Amino acid sequence: MNRDAIQHALGHHFGDQHLLEQALTHRSFGIPHNERLEFIGDGLLNCVIALALYQRFPELDEGSLSRLRAGLVKQESLHQLALKLDVGQALRLGEGELRSGGHRRPSILADAMEALFGATYLDAGFTVVQGVITRLYTEMIAAIDPKHAGKDPKTSLQEWLQGHHQALPHYEMLNIRGEAHAQEFEVVCRLVDLGFETTGLGPSRRAAEQQAARGALDRIEAL
Amino acid sequence: MNRDAIQHALGHHFGDQHLLEQALTHRSFGIPHNERLEFIGDGLLNCVIALALYQRFPELDEGSLSRLRAGLVKQESLHQLALKLDVGQALRLGEGELRSGGHRRPSILADAMEALFGATYLDAGFTVVQGVITRLYTEMIAAIDPKHAGKDPKTSLQEWLQGHHQALPHYEMLNIRGEAHAQEFEVVCRLVDLGFETTGLGPSRRAAEQQAARGALDRIEAL
Repeated sequence: MNRDAIQHALGHHFGDQHLLEQALTHRSFGIPHNERLEFIGDGLLNCVIALALYQRFPELDEGSLSRLRAGLVKQESLHQLALKLDVGQALRLGEGELRSGGHRRPSILADAMEALFGATYLDAGFTVVQGVITRLYTEMIAAIDPKHAGKDPKTSLQEWLQGHHQALPHYEMLNIRGEAHAQEFEVVCRLVDLGFETTGLGPSRRAAEQQAARGALDRIEAL
Repeated sequence: MNRDAIQHALGHHFGDQHLLEQALTHRSFGIPHNERLEFIGDGLLNCVIALALYQRFPELDEGSLSRLRAGLVKQESLHQLALKLDVGQALRLGEGELRSGGHRRPSILADAMEALFGATYLDAGFTVVQGVITRLYTEMIAAIDPKHAGKDPKTSLQEWLQGHHQALPHYEMLNIRGEAHAQEFEVVCRLVDLGFETTGLGPSRRAAEQQAARGALDRIEAL
């Protein structure tokens, strides 16, 4: 049942259901588990995303493409995909992992996603797994703003300011709200030469600064 | 002429010769250069080597496979392939790079190898570039000793000694020969408990130690 939904979401029905089962088996459950599949899945993912970005952004240089890829293949992105496919429900985990909530752990879910890519390759070849990965990443790739592609907002903002001989931004913490395990940071980004400031919120100082910088870039583009 | 030899050695004749030319063009020469091709070539290489190792070593775990792959895709290995294909003779470099011997620089040659893989994919697809890379790496993969697969000799030796409750090896520099730009190091690896020693030569202290450790492992296997 769960496995049917995963195969539907992947867009690939496994000829060899043992491969699917292995991809969904954490090492805590027993052998054969999904670590070797994860190894090839990681290679396939990196390769397919590189090819997709190369085609999608003909104007970007190697460094920008590398930064973009890093953002797409990182654990957090894979974790999001795993949630979308509800991979956690179908995972086979040892008792200890089950009790400690292993089926919700981002690293375990991200690894299982990669293992699913590896299993798809073994089941059906490169073209099929390329199609699967490209479809799953369609939205994330479409959401990339080519103007700032591959650079985080703080870097983009700094580069724009330097290129226009403007003073660099000052970031300052305004506020920390919430309890220790769920803090929210508020940061202001002051652009003295441009005469405006923006604020950003986030679960870390860095995230809040990036959001403030993103706001500043949006203001600059609207100038 | 040079390009024909490279295509012969790759085992792929380019339908689009512009792709081959671009793969052989360093950024110092002008645009279009090979850096974007290198980006996808790197992804393809990592992926194809991962798949080859997965098939070749069904008994190895993910960590060992990763270590093996790192050894095969590193600059030094790509540089060796580039020398074999005589890629340097066909490289297009700017004048400054030419004068400073850029066509012999390992990083430039390794990057060009990756760009050739990227260009092959664009010219002919995944199956063809997979064949090209797998053929070029046949010897290097065949030379991997599955008993020590994925581990460098010093690590393997240390693990064997610990597993057999023997004293750890002592490495000592015996000699440094040659002029500053082409030094050769000679190192001895002493195994007190086993009552023998081996020596190693190499272009660095580390390389010499690894060779000495490899010799010790060979002796141990012959015991």
